[in-house]
Amino acid sequence: MNSWIDIPQNSDFSIHNLPYGIFLRDEKPTPGVAIGDYIIDLNAAAKVGVFTDLEFDTSVFESDFLNDFIDCGKDAWTSLRHCLIKELTAQGNLFEFKEKVIVDRLSADMCMPVRIGDYTDFYSSIEHATNLGKLFRPDSEPLLPNWRHIPVGYHGRASSIIISGTPIKRPSGQSKAPTADTPSFGKSKRLDIELEMAFIIGKSTTLGDSININNAEDHIFGKVIFNDWSARDIQGWEYVPLGPFLGKSFASTISPWIVTMEALEPFRCESIPQEPTVLPYLQYEGQKNFNINLEVGITPEGDEETTISESNFKYMYWNMAQQLTHHTVNGCNVNVGDMMASGTISGRDQHSYGSMIEISKGGKEPMELKNGKTRTFLEDGDTITIRAYCEKDGVRVGFGECSGKILP
Amino acid sequence: MNSWIDIPQNSDFSIHNLPYGIFLRDEKPTPGVAIGDYIIDLNAAAKVGVFTDLEFDTSVFESDFLNDFIDCGKDAWTSLRHCLIKELTAQGNLFEFKEKVIVDRLSADMCMPVRIGDYTDFYSSIEHATNLGKLFRPDSEPLLPNWRHIPVGYHGRASSIIISGTPIKRPSGQSKAPTADTPSFGKSKRLDIELEMAFIIGKSTTLGDSININNAEDHIFGKVIFNDWSARDIQGWEYVPLGPFLGKSFASTISPWIVTMEALEPFRCESIPQEPTVLPYLQYEGQKNFNINLEVGITPEGDEETTISESNFKYMYWNMAQQLTHHTVNGCNVNVGDMMASGTISGRDQHSYGSMIEISKGGKEPMELKNGKTRTFLEDGDTITIRAYCEKDGVRVGFGECSGKILP
Repeated sequence: MNSWIDIPQNSDFSIHNLPYGIFLRDEKPTPGVAIGDYIIDLNAAAKVGVFTDLEFDTSVFESDFLNDFIDCGKDAWTSLRHCLIKELTAQGNLFEFKEKVIVDRLSADMCMPVRIGDYTDFYSSIEHATNLGKLFRPDSEPLLPNWRHIPVGYHGRASSIIISGTPIKRPSGQSKAPTADTPSFGKSKRLDIELEMAFIIGKSTTLGDSININNAEDHIFGKVIFNDWSARDIQGWEYVPLGPFLGKSFASTISPWIVTMEALEPFRCESIPQEPTVLPYLQYEGQKNFNINLEVGITPEGDEETTISESNFKYMYWNMAQQLTHHTVNGCNVNVGDMMASGTISGRDQHSYGSMIEISKGGKEPMELKNGKTRTFLEDGDTITIRAYCEKDGVRVGFGECSGKILP
Repeated sequence: MNSWIDIPQNSDFSIHNLPYGIFLRDEKPTPGVAIGDYIIDLNAAAKVGVFTDLEFDTSVFESDFLNDFIDCGKDAWTSLRHCLIKELTAQGNLFEFKEKVIVDRLSADMCMPVRIGDYTDFYSSIEHATNLGKLFRPDSEPLLPNWRHIPVGYHGRASSIIISGTPIKRPSGQSKAPTADTPSFGKSKRLDIELEMAFIIGKSTTLGDSININNAEDHIFGKVIFNDWSARDIQGWEYVPLGPFLGKSFASTISPWIVTMEALEPFRCESIPQEPTVLPYLQYEGQKNFNINLEVGITPEGDEETTISESNFKYMYWNMAQQLTHHTVNGCNVNVGDMMASGTISGRDQHSYGSMIEISKGGKEPMELKNGKTRTFLEDGDTITIRAYCEKDGVRVGFGECSGKILP
């Protein structure tokens, strides 16, 4: 597919992608679609008549968030995608009004794409759960008895989910050194990342209803990169018996562009076999995993970036359909804009682990960065950048970047 | 204080109370204040000029939720309270337009009073934490090492918080009997209640900021009764290592009227001494506990009610100011309308326990109800009603009821 817009080779935002985001235009949060180094302003496009053939109310693009558009439903998403592909490959209204409708992406300020209702974090990588189990509970079996039966998850804090580029203030809190008798208060000394992806609910349910696994993906609008910053010292002291709390709730960063399930469709792949067989409500047909390359880079203040992890979303033991089906099996309702993160995505070897606590074996083996630096956990001034992309048969669909810098 | 409105003796909604709620008027959710068996329609009152002397924008009463009013700040809450007391004790505009502004409370349909952003559940009763520890971890010390240092809490599901009177569908899920090798799927057989109260955030903070314990109560608008329905069989299997999830997220019920901190002011009381001394950021001055009587009644289908628990909010080991200070000490931001529940409020003896699993000692000792019935956990058709009230020197400030019926 050739477009009259100049799309750099190897751009994450090819015409096969068309992800949605919210950018600032004249200080107003505005829905847009990324294409190459540009953004299509959806509100401006609606106003000049690019979408006259579409059957949903395009005043949803006047909103500060994508929730209203997402709530229009799957047919609306598909029709807009087809319309944009047509408009980008032929010279129609979009071409005619391009000066008004198309803006520069590289200089745009991005905002939160959705108003998040509830946020859930899963724990669905078997390598990560095993690695963390060894570190947090060294004297017992690392994988707990429920792990292979349940896509284990927990509720997280929605208010502190922030957009890529927002700096992170190092959190303070209680922790207790293994050798100490009592806890102490101070800045976290074991500040870490978690390499995750998150999906965004596209279709609400009513309290008391459950989502069948065969329809689960119909309730998913798209995905973003997710960095679940974690203060390991705070987490280690607080997490029994009710789970992580302040060790996580100070910040989680997402990438600004939501890549739709439709754009990800060509990148489905085989999954890891689940042993033992899961209960019937979690059994599925077809391929529910996705081949999405993931990379984590760390950039110390004033220095160059070192890649510290290369992982892949395909390593997930539990897939999104299973997570969402499990989440609603008790009748829990979900709403458009809710976010559900994967949990840390670790592969099999140390260079594919999704957190620094895993890579550094609990802080005991520093990782080597460029220019002679080393790290166990994050230091002030460090910037973490996560990138994600799919590539197949010359087609690239990427997520851009999810980055954040640690402030003292 | 005498009012020209007829207020029944012993009403929860005395002139000392004036709690806020949202009721349906002509099918439109409308902010109101309860007084005796009546509701003052705040939007109608604003329209006929009752609030002309107030310095905040009373168009906030056109909203479907109280968030916009709450966001006006503490001075607005206080000035409205004083105005209402004046209008109820003298014959002014409210008296003149009473036909338009005052409606019957007993026949009113109530709605969710606030749009909840995030919901947090604490675990702050030492008796409950000890009792549950014995039941869930019989082979180890019931109170975990962090419990006396941290007001332990976790994030809960906001979407499934519902208003009193909404029926509860018995949840399904995975559980594993202690004697079974593998989990099975089915309706919960150990459906329980948790007697809690929740406070509502009245003043937002910015990500990265913390609330000092001396100012913490300024961030609290008021309180409701909270029933954190719990499926103990689902919870027992899923909760390690990340905490309760589907065992809780199918429903939590709140009472419809938010009793303000100002109305609760006369009912402050001494607290339980905290041993060992807590870390400095959690140390406070003055009385931060409140004497609020709590009662739980169970009514089997077509039968009469039996009171199964009489507890009191004063039993809290950790107070609200400590909970909120701890919650934000890592920089986590809070928003107006966020809800924070106490955790189950148990007293020292079996008749003051706040959950059926505690009263029935893990389901082993059935409690006796009227007319020869017994219960360990909830059966289909059972209605649970929680009541809460303060009383002192002839002044009564109550919360009304928080009730829900179990559907199969």
